[in-house]
Amino acid sequence: MANSLSFVAARRELTASETDREPTSAQTARVKALQSAETAAAMSGRTVTFGPGEPLKLASGKSLSPLTIAYQTYGTLNADKSNAILICHALTGDQFVTDTHPVTGRAGWWSEMVGPGKSVDLDRFFVICADVVGGCMGSTGPSSINPETGVPYALEFPVITIADMVRAQAMLIDQLGIDQLFCVMGGSMGGMQVLQWAASFPTRVFSAIPIATAARHSSQNIAFHEVGRQAVMADPNWRQGRYLIEDTRPEKGLSVARMAAHITYLSEEVLHRKFGRNFQDRDAPTFSFDADFQVESYLRYQGSSFVDRFDANSYLYLTRTMDYFDLAADHEGVLANAFSGTKTRFCCVSFTSDWLFPTAGNRHIVHALNAVAANVSFVEVSSDKGHDAFLLVEPELFAAVSGFLGAAARRRGLSPAKSGI
Amino acid sequence: MANSLSFVAARRELTASETDREPTSAQTARVKALQSAETAAAMSGRTVTFGPGEPLKLASGKSLSPLTIAYQTYGTLNADKSNAILICHALTGDQFVTDTHPVTGRAGWWSEMVGPGKSVDLDRFFVICADVVGGCMGSTGPSSINPETGVPYALEFPVITIADMVRAQAMLIDQLGIDQLFCVMGGSMGGMQVLQWAASFPTRVFSAIPIATAARHSSQNIAFHEVGRQAVMADPNWRQGRYLIEDTRPEKGLSVARMAAHITYLSEEVLHRKFGRNFQDRDAPTFSFDADFQVESYLRYQGSSFVDRFDANSYLYLTRTMDYFDLAADHEGVLANAFSGTKTRFCCVSFTSDWLFPTAGNRHIVHALNAVAANVSFVEVSSDKGHDAFLLVEPELFAAVSGFLGAAARRRGLSPAKSGI
Repeated sequence: MANSLSFVAARRELTASETDREPTSAQTARVKALQSAETAAAMSGRTVTFGPGEPLKLASGKSLSPLTIAYQTYGTLNADKSNAILICHALTGDQFVTDTHPVTGRAGWWSEMVGPGKSVDLDRFFVICADVVGGCMGSTGPSSINPETGVPYALEFPVITIADMVRAQAMLIDQLGIDQLFCVMGGSMGGMQVLQWAASFPTRVFSAIPIATAARHSSQNIAFHEVGRQAVMADPNWRQGRYLIEDTRPEKGLSVARMAAHITYLSEEVLHRKFGRNFQDRDAPTFSFDADFQVESYLRYQGSSFVDRFDANSYLYLTRTMDYFDLAADHEGVLANAFSGTKTRFCCVSFTSDWLFPTAGNRHIVHALNAVAANVSFVEVSSDKGHDAFLLVEPELFAAVSGFLGAAARRRGLSPAKSGI
Repeated sequence: MANSLSFVAARRELTASETDREPTSAQTARVKALQSAETAAAMSGRTVTFGPGEPLKLASGKSLSPLTIAYQTYGTLNADKSNAILICHALTGDQFVTDTHPVTGRAGWWSEMVGPGKSVDLDRFFVICADVVGGCMGSTGPSSINPETGVPYALEFPVITIADMVRAQAMLIDQLGIDQLFCVMGGSMGGMQVLQWAASFPTRVFSAIPIATAARHSSQNIAFHEVGRQAVMADPNWRQGRYLIEDTRPEKGLSVARMAAHITYLSEEVLHRKFGRNFQDRDAPTFSFDADFQVESYLRYQGSSFVDRFDANSYLYLTRTMDYFDLAADHEGVLANAFSGTKTRFCCVSFTSDWLFPTAGNRHIVHALNAVAANVSFVEVSSDKGHDAFLLVEPELFAAVSGFLGAAARRRGLSPAKSGI
């Protein structure tokens, strides 16, 4: 275990052998690629690295080593380590749940949900969130240095799954000396990890909150992901994935991918309410391809700001984990089998206007849990904000989470919240 | 009026001045661009060209001249020219409604709807369909030769609107000596043209069938269009629109645009029914970015086959016409005003699973027509096929169209169908 040892070693090898003479452009690009990995590592917060003796065994049959997990913690772990909540982030999220994001400088992605006195009360709970394997905020992913080549993996990174992410998180939880998590919670791809945790490690999950998710990715959602991947791969700067090594960036392709995806995170209602057909800084159409409409301007901004904080290859790999997710398929085609005998308490949440992970798919999880007589509650939150509602200020969601966590905490025998509730 | 005279003239000018010496690559590209326009013209079927004395006056204030309209007709115009049906095609459609398409070799896009004895009965009606202005199957569009430069317009083509398309169609209808169309019908962008016809030329439209459309493009739909345009423009082969002149093709960008759009033409239900999570020619995931899933393979095919038959700049211009469409905005913000005093009979059709042009938007048209006491019927067809349902075999749609046309024909005093119905 060490902080990013592998890439430091690779860097040293490069500088020793190549500093004597004028660097070629390929060498310069290689140094830049290594610097890029170095920068990501420096911004990743806390990390733990598992060496050659502790490889991550992958669903594909391959294994990944060394494995670095970058993570953040919030609040205080109690003496018997019984108040830990693992938060699983979504596709383009990361470990910075509530503190300032080191790249964007903005508040963490779930600052409204997590904090002292908030639904996930940091006066009471110890929160852990790790950048997923395959990500780009410090955990090992396609932009990490491949120890066999000394340059970023790119497409030599193995294709991973949601189950692989969860196994890596379990290694981190072991490392932190935590036997059982009080709760595992997350939305979207994070919700898939929650379900996988409950299926893979039932005795280690006291309670679980899968939000706006599904037990398998739908055909339509695979289709949207495929569009995003093709947009990235169509960018000549993607260079068959070797853009870090060749010192280019597939920014346009990644931006288009993000734009397409972003529409699916919203709803027709909220787009109509926020933008309608309003013009952007003009009173009438310009009869051009400028961003005449506010919604065009908004979408272009979403695309261009995303490329500053996310790695294109990570986008390919992480969308693929969701496509591959089908929990029933791993259990003789019967979803209920994934949860048979479970003692975990579940609170499933969906949003009325979420068409990416509609209520029906969330209810399907509830039915499977009912079939094994699990302890499960289900909340469909009324919202016009679409899939993104789980990231936004939604009092009904906050109330459901705090209520469920409070009841589970009493059952677990945790000390009451400071407010006395 | 003449067949593609303008581009022939431009071609002659080029060869006279440049054949004496070895052509530069720019000249070669220019010749290829002209040949490309020539090929399109040769495949366009019937054409009519309006010369400098008859410019198309555009909503933007500009005008377009010369103007060529490429069109097809089917069936026989009766003696008093009272049995003509104008079919307006959708975004990527064209004039080849029911005969073999000259590029793809496949049956015309509405072969199931239009033919002898079919819902639009060619034993009874005379059908006209014209490639829209801005299109790429022979009507003047961004790939046509700009008479001022001798090379394709590219982005020097003026931005056009649905109303401009309809004015151009009216010039064609004048040319054919038809005072009043028995019916104007079409789906999607074609339905927008139907509504515009009824608003702009109320006395020339005896009946109208707008299908799966809207009186204004929604914020979400503008957003999807913007993604498609950005995908095209992100392709370096687009060359700021000058790809024909520079002898490149933005095929990857256009393919991504088509893939994203194609998802919106379907429904989650039909994708689930047709593809689900089925693998393509394999039993298990390959743990790669190959098209593991049937839906990925299908989508890639939709993208790659589209670029063989459609022009990227036409795609930009035609999506823009739909974004700009807002019939109420042209009538003091009140849609009903667009139809005040109308004597046209309307049959509006929507599909239950169409989320691109949902029933609500179609019903909004019906309500506006009700407000001016128009003669209107409304049919919501049960279908799981999404927006594309209007192009497919949908018996309920066929029955609605044939029933409505039959009743309107009796009212118009047309001779009965051969079958005696």
